[in-house]
Amino acid sequence: MQRVAVAGASGYAGGEVLRLLLAHPDLEVGAVTAGGNAGQPLGSIHPHLTPLADRVLEETTVEVLSDHDAVVLALPHGHSAAIAEQLGDDVVVVDCGADFRLRDAQAWTTFYDTPHAGSWPYGMPELPTDGGKQRDALVGATRIAVPGCYPTAVSLALAPGLAGGVVDPGDITVVAASGTSGAGKSLKPHLLGSEVMGSMSPYGVGGVHRHTPEIEQNLSACGAGPVVVSFTPTLAPMPRGILATGTATVAEGATAAEVRAAWETAYQDEPFVHLLPEGRWPSTSSVVGSNCVHLQVTLDDRVGRVVVVAAVDNLTKGTGGAAVQCLNLALGLPETTGLPLAGIAP
Amino acid sequence: MQRVAVAGASGYAGGEVLRLLLAHPDLEVGAVTAGGNAGQPLGSIHPHLTPLADRVLEETTVEVLSDHDAVVLALPHGHSAAIAEQLGDDVVVVDCGADFRLRDAQAWTTFYDTPHAGSWPYGMPELPTDGGKQRDALVGATRIAVPGCYPTAVSLALAPGLAGGVVDPGDITVVAASGTSGAGKSLKPHLLGSEVMGSMSPYGVGGVHRHTPEIEQNLSACGAGPVVVSFTPTLAPMPRGILATGTATVAEGATAAEVRAAWETAYQDEPFVHLLPEGRWPSTSSVVGSNCVHLQVTLDDRVGRVVVVAAVDNLTKGTGGAAVQCLNLALGLPETTGLPLAGIAP
Amino acid sequence: MQRVAVAGASGYAGGEVLRLLLAHPDLEVGAVTAGGNAGQPLGSIHPHLTPLADRVLEETTVEVLSDHDAVVLALPHGHSAAIAEQLGDDVVVVDCGADFRLRDAQAWTTFYDTPHAGSWPYGMPELPTDGGKQRDALVGATRIAVPGCYPTAVSLALAPGLAGGVVDPGDITVVAASGTSGAGKSLKPHLLGSEVMGSMSPYGVGGVHRHTPEIEQNLSACGAGPVVVSFTPTLAPMPRGILATGTATVAEGATAAEVRAAWETAYQDEPFVHLLPEGRWPSTSSVVGSNCVHLQVTLDDRVGRVVVVAAVDNLTKGTGGAAVQCLNLALGLPETTGLPLAGIAP
Amino acid sequence: MQRVAVAGASGYAGGEVLRLLLAHPDLEVGAVTAGGNAGQPLGSIHPHLTPLADRVLEETTVEVLSDHDAVVLALPHGHSAAIAEQLGDDVVVVDCGADFRLRDAQAWTTFYDTPHAGSWPYGMPELPTDGGKQRDALVGATRIAVPGCYPTAVSLALAPGLAGGVVDPGDITVVAASGTSGAGKSLKPHLLGSEVMGSMSPYGVGGVHRHTPEIEQNLSACGAGPVVVSFTPTLAPMPRGILATGTATVAEGATAAEVRAAWETAYQDEPFVHLLPEGRWPSTSSVVGSNCVHLQVTLDDRVGRVVVVAAVDNLTKGTGGAAVQCLNLALGLPETTGLPLAGIAP
Repeated sequence: MQRVAVAGASGYAGGEVLRLLLAHPDLEVGAVTAGGNAGQPLGSIHPHLTPLADRVLEETTVEVLSDHDAVVLALPHGHSAAIAEQLGDDVVVVDCGADFRLRDAQAWTTFYDTPHAGSWPYGMPELPTDGGKQRDALVGATRIAVPGCYPTAVSLALAPGLAGGVVDPGDITVVAASGTSGAGKSLKPHLLGSEVMGSMSPYGVGGVHRHTPEIEQNLSACGAGPVVVSFTPTLAPMPRGILATGTATVAEGATAAEVRAAWETAYQDEPFVHLLPEGRWPSTSSVVGSNCVHLQVTLDDRVGRVVVVAAVDNLTKGTGGAAVQCLNLALGLPETTGLPLAGIAP
Repeated sequence: MQRVAVAGASGYAGGEVLRLLLAHPDLEVGAVTAGGNAGQPLGSIHPHLTPLADRVLEETTVEVLSDHDAVVLALPHGHSAAIAEQLGDDVVVVDCGADFRLRDAQAWTTFYDTPHAGSWPYGMPELPTDGGKQRDALVGATRIAVPGCYPTAVSLALAPGLAGGVVDPGDITVVAASGTSGAGKSLKPHLLGSEVMGSMSPYGVGGVHRHTPEIEQNLSACGAGPVVVSFTPTLAPMPRGILATGTATVAEGATAAEVRAAWETAYQDEPFVHLLPEGRWPSTSSVVGSNCVHLQVTLDDRVGRVVVVAAVDNLTKGTGGAAVQCLNLALGLPETTGLPLAGIAP
Repeated sequence: MQRVAVAGASGYAGGEVLRLLLAHPDLEVGAVTAGGNAGQPLGSIHPHLTPLADRVLEETTVEVLSDHDAVVLALPHGHSAAIAEQLGDDVVVVDCGADFRLRDAQAWTTFYDTPHAGSWPYGMPELPTDGGKQRDALVGATRIAVPGCYPTAVSLALAPGLAGGVVDPGDITVVAASGTSGAGKSLKPHLLGSEVMGSMSPYGVGGVHRHTPEIEQNLSACGAGPVVVSFTPTLAPMPRGILATGTATVAEGATAAEVRAAWETAYQDEPFVHLLPEGRWPSTSSVVGSNCVHLQVTLDDRVGRVVVVAAVDNLTKGTGGAAVQCLNLALGLPETTGLPLAGIAP
Repeated sequence: MQRVAVAGASGYAGGEVLRLLLAHPDLEVGAVTAGGNAGQPLGSIHPHLTPLADRVLEETTVEVLSDHDAVVLALPHGHSAAIAEQLGDDVVVVDCGADFRLRDAQAWTTFYDTPHAGSWPYGMPELPTDGGKQRDALVGATRIAVPGCYPTAVSLALAPGLAGGVVDPGDITVVAASGTSGAGKSLKPHLLGSEVMGSMSPYGVGGVHRHTPEIEQNLSACGAGPVVVSFTPTLAPMPRGILATGTATVAEGATAAEVRAAWETAYQDEPFVHLLPEGRWPSTSSVVGSNCVHLQVTLDDRVGRVVVVAAVDNLTKGTGGAAVQCLNLALGLPETTGLPLAGIAP
């Protein structure tokens, strides 16, 4: 058993990492730390984690975190670098925050308005890249940046079309609906249950959402040239799940069969990314609690656009599951160890 | 008081028409009819319509319907023509079904696979047309086709950009989320509460949803040339409401201010269609129960697309409220009579 | 038109009062005031109140409130007395807060732990009292205390059994489920959408909820002697609505017919309180947005208990609708003026 | 690995059993059978069970089921006996249906109105009985009747008080809220998402719900004498979870400490039943997906009643998890093998 500490354990991302570690055969929960919630038992913060109910949250310090095989950081962005640089290279660090995701310092500054901390290997193993998969950069890495939830859904949805040359990189639109846990536990009026239930609303419209450059970085790495994306996120009345709908102009001459083949090829050997049989479309309820991505793609001949829909659980494959998948790769375990393939429904 | 019969009163559309008629100062509920539910009291079908609880549903026959100032049809498509042609021209007929919405018989046959019944004046008063508003066709009409719910949201969202020449007609994408009442009361497994709650899923992807030609008919009438639309509807975990997100390539040279002005101009005198102040985005909860449409529009300079979002209540402005608005116009009443401007929230 | 000011207009209770005033034929919205939200337009606080979107919230001061026919107070408890005593007796004051509901100063102090402000006529017209109805105390009153939401559901549910002598006053249990708007807009972690959706949980268990003495005051006034109640409130994953289930030992010798007759007698002439036909049970969705209470009662012979279930909208009949009903009585208008009898469903 | 067949695999109970078997280290999924859905792939019925997506449902026949170590029946009641009697005693049979739960043939006939099939050992290991635990009857059993979902929550909630002599058996009331999956996948109008979302409603009021005699059988076995219960189930707007609130008159002279001690004693060694620390109350979201029961109890001195609240996942501990727990006991595996202690939240 290798021991994993979780920093920022009182948030939703941290809680999900703990849920998955509890079910992991080769990893065990080490220190659990928090900021304002330090000193509280996990039972009052995450009452669903029954086996950890009596564990008390410690302060997030390097001393508490250092004596572990790995540390998962689930902190607000801007806090990861200071901790990571004090943890030795013998400690694997996996960061669920945004700090080390973007390679372009200018893009970081534009969207986050703080200094760029740098970039770490990007933890999306299944992502098609120009001639390979992102997985190659992750095996044995000691620092990994866990992708954002929207970028996970959107990049895995659209990359095969670009990598396979069946869609045009120039005209991509995405509308995605996310459950409310994507916004974290922050106490904002629009996140109250009374406001959320029964309502759909957009936010960050017009290309200003911080996940936009991350999506574009991923899609631009597919070898089809630089990509910009019209990205509209919306808040949906459910706790978990992202449904992302992407459209792109079909490449001239590409047939429906070629379109489908591009997605089949990209994911045929992937344990977590599933192109559904033709005629079946993804639903978020089918992936809640699992590390899977469900996909479907079609060609709308009337308008000449490929339409692809992806469903993921924003907290599992979108955050905590990806973190554990990265831990597996970094720590030399089989990539799928301990990660749920079945969701919980209804 | 003019008397209005409602045929198909046991469905959601019929129930919404009744709710609005109960609050209308100049119209009163006449006969209420149904198919399989005939003989039942409304109290067991629509328990929220307390004042009508003891009214018994009659069979849908011409005899029952004929002795009224107006009849609202809320029947499955394919049933309206036979009834309407037996009701005299002195009886106003407003059809909530699809039968008389499409002017193009070919489009009807392609999407509905039944003979085309013809077309009636299209009941969307606020729709910008080439040089005017659709309202002109409705004042004093004796037959009106009430628009579909998605076409209401999508057409009112996008038409100003086309009518105003600030977006390109060639490359429009729409993703819309609808509450489950849009699917009616039909007993299908995927509409069960257990399946719906906590889940988002797409359907009718790839341009096959029947509302597609209706949207294209409306947008093509704006004077910018024929329009085709990439339209993806999704089912959201809420009973009511549509949130439609449309994007279109900005017309060459059009500025953000010109974009906004196109929407302001289109709706500045409309009582039910509201462009929100800059920075505020629509939410479905803000229009539930009201006849209003809330809109916001922005220009995403990075990708050169205009993004517009509309929220409507699919049962009110999307069906029953539009029906009453059409009744008002047909019966010579002020257009807004009896129609709620405020929604119910939270 | 008489003018009504609303103090505390940015909360859910204030918003509901405004929604109902907008639909009222004889009352108009005067000043709207707030605390921390003063200076903001209503459109950013209550976007569903489209006709008031540009109205700006003023500070809650006596000067702003005084020049009206009536003032509705929707403030946190403890703030009403200071304002009310500075408003002349020519201004009707209706208080949605708890301050003036309890006649027993000792009960107030026990449950609220602040000095007792006194008591005003209790604004539940339909409540059976020993030999009459509470309505008699309200006609022409200048100060009225609007009941709490749970007490509305629970008292109207159980009082007929006590007033009619068909249940024993000694052994009453109540479990009630409330939508989240009952907890107001306060920013507490357990009220976040992510926490609320998909979850039921109890709170204030063991007789400590502040609505307990108010329920007992109401039931003790039925003439059957002092009543204590085992009251357990629970939070349900919905924005609005209360479903209250009460049980009481049937009085010795009382038959099922006599039990039913007690409820029929109590409410046969009441416009807003409806005993449903036998076999139909209330649902909260049937009363959302309306001022109605739906009730059903049965005798469980096996255990010798009467079981009664009531559904109300906590914000309408449970708060804002009751406030307007009280305004009507105080201002000499017909009691039902402007109040919705039909709810909005689905 | 021992092989387990699941009959009735297309329903919610069957799906949950499959979900848990997929995570079980010592059991594997054998045949999966259905009635009307035979011939369909599981991927179109339970899309969340990704690893089983291509498995095709077979007809439910003895031939298909017989060659397994164990068979789980998840059939409508009335169908289990005919299958079970044809399966040899070397095949463990665990029945999720009601057929073999009641020992009293008269109670069966009264509530189910069909002939009594008999009774099997009752699969609730943790249930306090007169002097022991129900577990003793289950180790090595070859036929086990899985308890109903409400009886699981209610019996585990109340039994310690009766077994410990701290509550009176004569006056017990229960109100329970269940998620909609408790009603199964049957296509009934009141189970549609549009009807369910945003609504609470009671059903089976007055002691007529079929789980009533099962609850009474369990509580009567605690040694405090025959028990009858006032039981009111309600439908809540969530897919999973039961929150049961029980009250009982405190035994004369019993103190709050003695009350708490009764529950502590009953469950101190139970892995799945957890009395929460004082001051924390259960929520259904804390047990969704887990096999745990969360409990809290208090004494309401003012009214002399003990109030106890239990939360369970109706599909996990309430059905499928209990079935797997029974399989473990019957097949000689450690009782907790493969069963989740942590839920999934938010």
